[in-house]
Amino acid sequence: MNTRAIRAGGCVVGGGDFVVIAGPCAVESETQIMRTAEAVALRGARILRGGAFKPRTSPYSFQGLGEEGLRLLRKAGRAFGLPVVTEVMSDTLVDIVAEYADILQIGSRSMENYVLLDAVARSGKPILMKRGMTSTVEEYAAAAQFVMEHGNRNIILCERGIRTFGTATRNTCDIVAVPLLQAMTGLPVILDPSHATGRRDLIPPLACAAAAIGADGLIVEVHPDPERALSDGEQSLTFDQFENMMAGLERYLQGQSRAPACAAVG
Amino acid sequence: MNTRAIRAGGCVVGGGDFVVIAGPCAVESETQIMRTAEAVALRGARILRGGAFKPRTSPYSFQGLGEEGLRLLRKAGRAFGLPVVTEVMSDTLVDIVAEYADILQIGSRSMENYVLLDAVARSGKPILMKRGMTSTVEEYAAAAQFVMEHGNRNIILCERGIRTFGTATRNTCDIVAVPLLQAMTGLPVILDPSHATGRRDLIPPLACAAAAIGADGLIVEVHPDPERALSDGEQSLTFDQFENMMAGLERYLQGQSRAPACAAVG
Amino acid sequence: MNTRAIRAGGCVVGGGDFVVIAGPCAVESETQIMRTAEAVALRGARILRGGAFKPRTSPYSFQGLGEEGLRLLRKAGRAFGLPVVTEVMSDTLVDIVAEYADILQIGSRSMENYVLLDAVARSGKPILMKRGMTSTVEEYAAAAQFVMEHGNRNIILCERGIRTFGTATRNTCDIVAVPLLQAMTGLPVILDPSHATGRRDLIPPLACAAAAIGADGLIVEVHPDPERALSDGEQSLTFDQFENMMAGLERYLQGQSRAPACAAVG
Amino acid sequence: MNTRAIRAGGCVVGGGDFVVIAGPCAVESETQIMRTAEAVALRGARILRGGAFKPRTSPYSFQGLGEEGLRLLRKAGRAFGLPVVTEVMSDTLVDIVAEYADILQIGSRSMENYVLLDAVARSGKPILMKRGMTSTVEEYAAAAQFVMEHGNRNIILCERGIRTFGTATRNTCDIVAVPLLQAMTGLPVILDPSHATGRRDLIPPLACAAAAIGADGLIVEVHPDPERALSDGEQSLTFDQFENMMAGLERYLQGQSRAPACAAVG
Repeated sequence: MNTRAIRAGGCVVGGGDFVVIAGPCAVESETQIMRTAEAVALRGARILRGGAFKPRTSPYSFQGLGEEGLRLLRKAGRAFGLPVVTEVMSDTLVDIVAEYADILQIGSRSMENYVLLDAVARSGKPILMKRGMTSTVEEYAAAAQFVMEHGNRNIILCERGIRTFGTATRNTCDIVAVPLLQAMTGLPVILDPSHATGRRDLIPPLACAAAAIGADGLIVEVHPDPERALSDGEQSLTFDQFENMMAGLERYLQGQSRAPACAAVG
Repeated sequence: MNTRAIRAGGCVVGGGDFVVIAGPCAVESETQIMRTAEAVALRGARILRGGAFKPRTSPYSFQGLGEEGLRLLRKAGRAFGLPVVTEVMSDTLVDIVAEYADILQIGSRSMENYVLLDAVARSGKPILMKRGMTSTVEEYAAAAQFVMEHGNRNIILCERGIRTFGTATRNTCDIVAVPLLQAMTGLPVILDPSHATGRRDLIPPLACAAAAIGADGLIVEVHPDPERALSDGEQSLTFDQFENMMAGLERYLQGQSRAPACAAVG
Repeated sequence: MNTRAIRAGGCVVGGGDFVVIAGPCAVESETQIMRTAEAVALRGARILRGGAFKPRTSPYSFQGLGEEGLRLLRKAGRAFGLPVVTEVMSDTLVDIVAEYADILQIGSRSMENYVLLDAVARSGKPILMKRGMTSTVEEYAAAAQFVMEHGNRNIILCERGIRTFGTATRNTCDIVAVPLLQAMTGLPVILDPSHATGRRDLIPPLACAAAAIGADGLIVEVHPDPERALSDGEQSLTFDQFENMMAGLERYLQGQSRAPACAAVG
Repeated sequence: MNTRAIRAGGCVVGGGDFVVIAGPCAVESETQIMRTAEAVALRGARILRGGAFKPRTSPYSFQGLGEEGLRLLRKAGRAFGLPVVTEVMSDTLVDIVAEYADILQIGSRSMENYVLLDAVARSGKPILMKRGMTSTVEEYAAAAQFVMEHGNRNIILCERGIRTFGTATRNTCDIVAVPLLQAMTGLPVILDPSHATGRRDLIPPLACAAAAIGADGLIVEVHPDPERALSDGEQSLTFDQFENMMAGLERYLQGQSRAPACAAVG
């Protein structure tokens, strides 16, 4: 599937390449994000992820570092040659986030927040738009269409698991949505094995499956010390696990002839 | 994942190999099943599938050829060196089906039919047991456990898609269930991309993903002329499409080092 | 909604009346079933329920009393003037169950077991057919249609909760299916608040809602000592709780003008 | 269940009374909202609903009247003695909406929009907070807890149907969530039969069931001419249908002894 090539900070997502986005759930400190950026860059990641605003149910739990988190994220990205992506959760925050990030992420819970979609579309920045956890592929494609009709066609889609009756994994990965959405929208579609499974041990095999089915890349959580992560530790890879995953992926990607089986979809 | 090796009619499923089971949804005529058996055998399938009893809502639609279907299925299998698998839908039919089939299939709707599970367990035949379309992996593993406690450990599991809110595909393929079930049960787990998607064009990419995630094989519907199939035509591959799928799979399987990324699950 | 009146052992379900079926999940002993039959008859139940065959995952847990359970169930029903209903789980058991029971129950897991549906249809007995836990109303109506086309129109339908992402209750009660199915099929539709909720405290309010929405009755689990029940204790009412539920229902049922709001559905 | 009494513009929701909120999906014109307000007030509604901001996928479809819609809604409410409720979709709109509305509605898609929840909590206005269409009751209670911890305890909850595999109705009404949420939170819980079913004919019977199960009220869509409504016409009642529904409800509500069966939940 020849998806649209989205340019972001010197990197290209879509158009035939397979791009790995990696980093912690949340930026926790300068040391944490610098070490992680270095580790993932060395092992083949091409974009750095990290959350700065983390509103939680309880006002007493970690809420993210806010603008300071954005500053640290960009600093780490610049230090190791990685463009950065981070979530923007409200239209009032679009300007400040756009000042630091190369790609603006729309979170799963915001997929149908039209006020936010409109503001992000008008920012002119490339967008990483996650699928709502209970959105159909048709609704997801329609939300992308909304952004395009509001003037921004630089959209990367991301399958991150849907909510079903199953409880063995955090969500159920709808992997078939990857070729379906590529065919329906022409946009690049990446996969988030961290949220799709919620379990560290299932991330590498799912990453291989994503490559085989023709995804345009991955977004994966990596942390220097997942046991002490302030959020999502159980679904974050260590640096060594990330290295093993990247090595495992290698054989599915060589020769650029990724997933020719996929060619007939649509 | 080193799953248990299940021997059936000269073929082995599990234990490290990747086995493709192929054939029509239903045995429709001698010509149809002989032609299909020849075509899939030539292209690398190792086991032949085909339904003989097809009870439907309307008593006026095609109900399968019954025992004559079993006889034709076996004849086609023997002619081209393929063991055969077919569904048994009632404990009263176990003896007759076991007379012809090398592997007894428990259909998705029968996964919790304990009377049937008991009868099939006592038959001594290897079993291909499909996941209930709304069963959790825990319930599925428990149903397999029931069969084992009734004396039969030769079980092949099969992820065939679950029911969710999605409607773009016939079911939602829970691909992560493959490594999960391998780790939980030690049994081989294959994938059914035909029922999981219900769409011919999505079968080859999903088959590649199944190989990459470490599945022990596939069961896929193939028909000489899907447009005229008496059932499931829209999810049956033509001989040419089957050939392309097998070629696409090749690169994920070479060197027997299938999905090493999967090793850490459990 | 004027549903078809189904006659069973001197009682009528459908046609405008509201009938309560009550009894234990499983017949455990003569004392248990006799005491329960007396208690529910005194408090207004019109049909007695109780399971005799209870195949479970583990062959070591309680499997039901089998034919002895059928005999005790009928004895208790006769003693207190209640027709009896019990589940039949295999076509091989239809004859023996039909010898004792006034109504044959098709369980949720068997809703699409066509071999069984055919055998039960041919028995000539009235049928209580539960909705599959993941069946759509269309599939449910089609399964009822199958039974009718195989010669038996005396069918009582039963909404018993469906499987969703929710975990606070055992299932999610799809209460709107009651008027929908009445309009689609013309058959009586009752509700099972025990399986729909899995929680004793939620049974009475849901029973009232069922009456208000125009259900033709209820099937509810009652046990002399739920804490010691061999199965489903947490969703069984005590005799006192059953009495309170029946009193609470009274006001929704008086005057036979039950749920006139429902008249317009279809 | 004795839920908290929430005061809003001279009306009380919760605390034992049953309150009907009615009005069109969207305010379309002065005539439309004035006629509707008059009609629903005469027939027993106590609060007027109506949408002013309606962002849609296509920028070419009706987007609501915006602030003019808010002005007309308030004018209609004042004319007929009804407090008004309308949705606020972004934290940037809280101030303007709070200027006109007596109750601020959080829509289903915004249930986990924490930036918005925080802004609405700080407004000091009573809140009608709808359940996310795929939120568990635990997540819903947690979102309400978030608002309370941000300083606002005047919350009305609303069950509006959840997303399941079913397609016969727009959503699946999880009616049992009503007593569950009342017991978990102590807050009033109303039901939205319009969104729960998406079908006009199913609204009256579901409204009766809501009263019987002990809900604190209803929110229902009413339009002078549903066939010509700019949105949600198929699930809007005519004035006559609304009148019939209110009459049907009467018998479930008289004597203030609403759903005593519900008392034991918790």
